[in-house]
Amino acid sequence: MTKPLIGRDTRLCMSLSARPSNFGTRFHNRLYELLGLDYVYKAFTTTDLPAAIGGIRALGIRGCAISMPFKEAVIPLLDGLEGSAAAIDSVNTIVNDDGRLTGHNTDYSAVRTLVEQAGVAAGTTAMLRGSGGMGKAVATALRDAGLTRGTIVARNERSGRALAESVGWEWAAEVDGRTAGLIANVTPLGMEGPDADALAFDRETIAAAELVLDAVALPPDTPLLRAARDAGKRVITGAAIGTLQALEQFVLYTGVTPTAEQVAEAERVARS
Amino acid sequence: MTKPLIGRDTRLCMSLSARPSNFGTRFHNRLYELLGLDYVYKAFTTTDLPAAIGGIRALGIRGCAISMPFKEAVIPLLDGLEGSAAAIDSVNTIVNDDGRLTGHNTDYSAVRTLVEQAGVAAGTTAMLRGSGGMGKAVATALRDAGLTRGTIVARNERSGRALAESVGWEWAAEVDGRTAGLIANVTPLGMEGPDADALAFDRETIAAAELVLDAVALPPDTPLLRAARDAGKRVITGAAIGTLQALEQFVLYTGVTPTAEQVAEAERVARS
Repeated sequence: MTKPLIGRDTRLCMSLSARPSNFGTRFHNRLYELLGLDYVYKAFTTTDLPAAIGGIRALGIRGCAISMPFKEAVIPLLDGLEGSAAAIDSVNTIVNDDGRLTGHNTDYSAVRTLVEQAGVAAGTTAMLRGSGGMGKAVATALRDAGLTRGTIVARNERSGRALAESVGWEWAAEVDGRTAGLIANVTPLGMEGPDADALAFDRETIAAAELVLDAVALPPDTPLLRAARDAGKRVITGAAIGTLQALEQFVLYTGVTPTAEQVAEAERVARS
Repeated sequence: MTKPLIGRDTRLCMSLSARPSNFGTRFHNRLYELLGLDYVYKAFTTTDLPAAIGGIRALGIRGCAISMPFKEAVIPLLDGLEGSAAAIDSVNTIVNDDGRLTGHNTDYSAVRTLVEQAGVAAGTTAMLRGSGGMGKAVATALRDAGLTRGTIVARNERSGRALAESVGWEWAAEVDGRTAGLIANVTPLGMEGPDADALAFDRETIAAAELVLDAVALPPDTPLLRAARDAGKRVITGAAIGTLQALEQFVLYTGVTPTAEQVAEAERVARS
């Protein structure tokens, strides 16, 4: 895979995270290539977030994806927040318009879009396991997609109650036999690493659900997703969320919307 | 021309100038490609130099070329200066070693190397026209290459006298029939633009010289260089200085020394 010659007018987009992955770099660069856009994308990390954000502004870097642990700390360094990012106090995307930095949250918008596309019957309840950074984006997206009743399951009572209150749901420390029409995992359970074999919900809870969402993107196939598919359930995968949120960043940065085939090709390259 | 896939470990080098050219971007990226180095190079401009330099440090950008008008203003923003940059109070190169930024001046070192390679007889005198930012690098390089006697010709008496004193030479407002063994132009005379047809030294002065240096790099062939070649003189061109100083930056950033053929190929691409 190759990319066109970089020149003085080439625009840079980037990411900031504690542990950069190759996904965004490959996804965006492949789309630039497919669409003939004079952009280049590169992942960065930093130990000095204010200086890094100041550099984005001073160097005219067009856009920046923000990952853990910077999603909240970045907010006071920006010039404004788009609505959803303001509502959930979490930014995963910065757009730089001539030195004015605006924070967006495409995790929120991607989850909301995918749930609305999947369609849930009126009155469907939700149960979300986890209360970390991604939890607020997912819970708020579910609430805004029409799931007005739900439960946040989190052992950490403080963060669990706070998240539940912010979306008007209940809090519980454990699943304890609860069921819901939409169940969502935003914990690391099933993620590559020590929790890779963990199943985020028991099989009875999965059997009672209609739609199963797993925010874990690596591996693309988690124990929860396998169990849900085995039980004949519809799923929203972390990989699908990851790709759609990256696509929304791409559109924010470039103003160009790729075709579904181009997105599929960029996703294939990014996950290879 | 293409370059390899950019990933999370790819290192970024860059330039900062008021009006970026394509030369550095093309030169460095072509060498990365020829040598299989996981680097990418991109030109930037800025209206906030302190934030831009803070961004270089915070984002781990490996190196940065500094052009007008930032060569002196950047000094207080760095963590240290290499000897030649300290001596002439002018930085055209920043090297970032794990957050410690050191200023270098490869204009100085390139001119000194080219003059030493050309060879000048002991006791040869110098005459340098101009007293701007590049003037100090060139005059100091000539002095350090053994030209201990010389004249700075500059209408601006203040900057002309200051530069002359700094290298132990004399100052004069005009050429006025003076001659020297090495004559050097560091004014914009002969540069693309309104002064493109101007000859920096008269033909009698050229005839009396042994070696003629022109710091103007665009166009690669100036009226001074043509007149010097017509008179059978040896020349040091602005293009040669520009390529050698960029090569020295490349070695500082990567630790790798390309072959002469690779440099010639990168120069060809960069000037095409």
